[in-house]
Amino acid sequence: MPTVLVTGFEPFGDERENPSAWAAERAAAELAGAGFDAHWAVLPVSFKRCREALAQLLERLKPDVAVALGLAGGVTHVRLERVAINLMDAGRPDNDGAQPVDEPIDPQGPAAYFSTLPLRRILERLRGEGVPAAISNSAGTFLCNFAMYLLLRHADLRGYPRRAGFIHVPYTPEIAARKPGPPPSLPLGMLVRAAVVAVEEAAASLTP
Amino acid sequence: MPTVLVTGFEPFGDERENPSAWAAERAAAELAGAGFDAHWAVLPVSFKRCREALAQLLERLKPDVAVALGLAGGVTHVRLERVAINLMDAGRPDNDGAQPVDEPIDPQGPAAYFSTLPLRRILERLRGEGVPAAISNSAGTFLCNFAMYLLLRHADLRGYPRRAGFIHVPYTPEIAARKPGPPPSLPLGMLVRAAVVAVEEAAASLTP
Amino acid sequence: MPTVLVTGFEPFGDERENPSAWAAERAAAELAGAGFDAHWAVLPVSFKRCREALAQLLERLKPDVAVALGLAGGVTHVRLERVAINLMDAGRPDNDGAQPVDEPIDPQGPAAYFSTLPLRRILERLRGEGVPAAISNSAGTFLCNFAMYLLLRHADLRGYPRRAGFIHVPYTPEIAARKPGPPPSLPLGMLVRAAVVAVEEAAASLTP
Amino acid sequence: MPTVLVTGFEPFGDERENPSAWAAERAAAELAGAGFDAHWAVLPVSFKRCREALAQLLERLKPDVAVALGLAGGVTHVRLERVAINLMDAGRPDNDGAQPVDEPIDPQGPAAYFSTLPLRRILERLRGEGVPAAISNSAGTFLCNFAMYLLLRHADLRGYPRRAGFIHVPYTPEIAARKPGPPPSLPLGMLVRAAVVAVEEAAASLTP
Repeated sequence: MPTVLVTGFEPFGDERENPSAWAAERAAAELAGAGFDAHWAVLPVSFKRCREALAQLLERLKPDVAVALGLAGGVTHVRLERVAINLMDAGRPDNDGAQPVDEPIDPQGPAAYFSTLPLRRILERLRGEGVPAAISNSAGTFLCNFAMYLLLRHADLRGYPRRAGFIHVPYTPEIAARKPGPPPSLPLGMLVRAAVVAVEEAAASLTP
Repeated sequence: MPTVLVTGFEPFGDERENPSAWAAERAAAELAGAGFDAHWAVLPVSFKRCREALAQLLERLKPDVAVALGLAGGVTHVRLERVAINLMDAGRPDNDGAQPVDEPIDPQGPAAYFSTLPLRRILERLRGEGVPAAISNSAGTFLCNFAMYLLLRHADLRGYPRRAGFIHVPYTPEIAARKPGPPPSLPLGMLVRAAVVAVEEAAASLTP
Repeated sequence: MPTVLVTGFEPFGDERENPSAWAAERAAAELAGAGFDAHWAVLPVSFKRCREALAQLLERLKPDVAVALGLAGGVTHVRLERVAINLMDAGRPDNDGAQPVDEPIDPQGPAAYFSTLPLRRILERLRGEGVPAAISNSAGTFLCNFAMYLLLRHADLRGYPRRAGFIHVPYTPEIAARKPGPPPSLPLGMLVRAAVVAVEEAAASLTP
Repeated sequence: MPTVLVTGFEPFGDERENPSAWAAERAAAELAGAGFDAHWAVLPVSFKRCREALAQLLERLKPDVAVALGLAGGVTHVRLERVAINLMDAGRPDNDGAQPVDEPIDPQGPAAYFSTLPLRRILERLRGEGVPAAISNSAGTFLCNFAMYLLLRHADLRGYPRRAGFIHVPYTPEIAARKPGPPPSLPLGMLVRAAVVAVEEAAASLTP
């Protein structure tokens, strides 16, 4: 069975929790139960430490599939990110206080990479299961886009992960219920399904 | 135990389903299980037939508590409606083709009624359970506001239901997943909780 | 010619400016130029002082028409408010630090008053002039709804102003340009038109 | 003086008008008045004809600077697009009925190009003038992204235009006033300023 990596992020800014980390943990457990060599990690919301953590994870695990998850507070549905751009433009400081503006992630890298996840198949399966989802054309310019670009840059340079991409998830209802508004949300189980389905379809798309 | 009525609406416009009816049915079943003399009904999305249906229900059941539910496609959370206004202003035809513009619901009635549900207690309990909810200051000018006004008008003239109000609910994820966007949603179980908690708190607020 | 009053509000919260006050001043100047006995005032964002200021203005001027303007940051168009409710529910403190929750504006007053401005005619004229506008069913529960309710309560008790209502306006582009987002906006000239057209149509609707 | 090209688009879908074309015409007139060798064109909302039209324009004019404008109905401010991606994914048919899904614009081209306009300087000047504006990270996957990618692809292959990019503009108030909502808008003069400032700053950034 393929080696797969699912990541989430630690809390950042004013948020005390980050459901992307919970979803990564639960998705990895489900995938392990289904026979995958499944690993999960929580990435730091720090440009410096996230870069190091991802490099170490990818070198240690050499995963066939890597799916990174991140929180996009305020979105209404699961967003399957299509493209990562070679840019850091932080509207606020990361958890180490760094705030790059209009800087490349990798000065030697191309302007962008497209996700190598089979987005249409993932989208169809999620919709079929009743999970609100759509393809998104921007992962922003903060840590989420950064992690996605680094996964795909690593794949371009080293050949693995053979399938990689990023999924933005909304708040869970429990988090949203404590916020003014309250903002949109989806149950944690649906965020987990997004990660599991993405990994399953990515693995199924690998030629043996 | 008090007699309680929970209503939802039939589908309208382009919608093929209306989760408010599903939530009403399930809430009534739960309330019956908890010992209430619980009734539920699906109201027609027709000014004429909704008025008749509500009048018959209220005369037949003489409920202590009545909570009407309706779908507000596009909202992110459960909205506890605070006020019903004496106005019909339909942006689109109802299911019978009627489209009143700027007409009073009851020419003899006051401009508005406030909900007689204990909104703050309901809100606190829902938030405590992790159900995203807020108090709303407008139920619109279509069938939802209409049903809410009629419940409160009836209570004003006849003395029952002693507690009455309206709750707007979002799409469920399963419905949202089939729509472009997709729009915000909450699980059906949370919509049911909104109705159950509203009835429970309304009943608890009744002096014996 | 009729005596008319146009009011705006002072800045509140984090805002340093309030375009409703600028629009009120300019509208009154235009109306005076057109022959009206036109007055304008800036209302304090304080439940206590706003109540006093309005009472004094109305007693001193005994206006035939009163149109109050207020800022609704984030809205995209001119909102002609349809109804004022007898409720103060402040999500944040007013400029004096008062923050009433679920209190009536006037314990002797009715639940709500409808605007006595000819909203449909105002709406048609504004649209015809290319000013984005719509009728709104909630003026909120802060100072704007408060001022609208007090105008209509005064009219109910004393007989003047014979036509009264409230208009919410968006940011101007110059204010929006300095905010993150940036949020929606309309040029100040369009906010002035909203006030002028509202007064003109209200005056035209008075029977001599 | 530099040769500059400003383009807009023809109406598409349900829209009867496209303010991007009006803004392009007026911006070119202003730039010509300021001494530029200024040209403007209205691009067809057709993948096939837009590609041909742009190729002919760029070969005939060999512009130093090219700024394409497009309408983004529903946005609140001027959006300075940062990146164009090598993808066509049309949510609806173009004006010729073509609807590519997940196809590259140029199978030989890179995944993306960054705008070569000096976005930060343009943004600062627009904000300073009171024009609501922001940098955007996605021009979508329809004709707007397509035109931006083709401009930058041409520049990459042929060396001109030396500065090129895309600006999304909102509705004008006059268009918004006729739509339900109404949606956000900015005055046409502000859309013209966006184009003029973009060309001026792009020209100023050229080394002679």
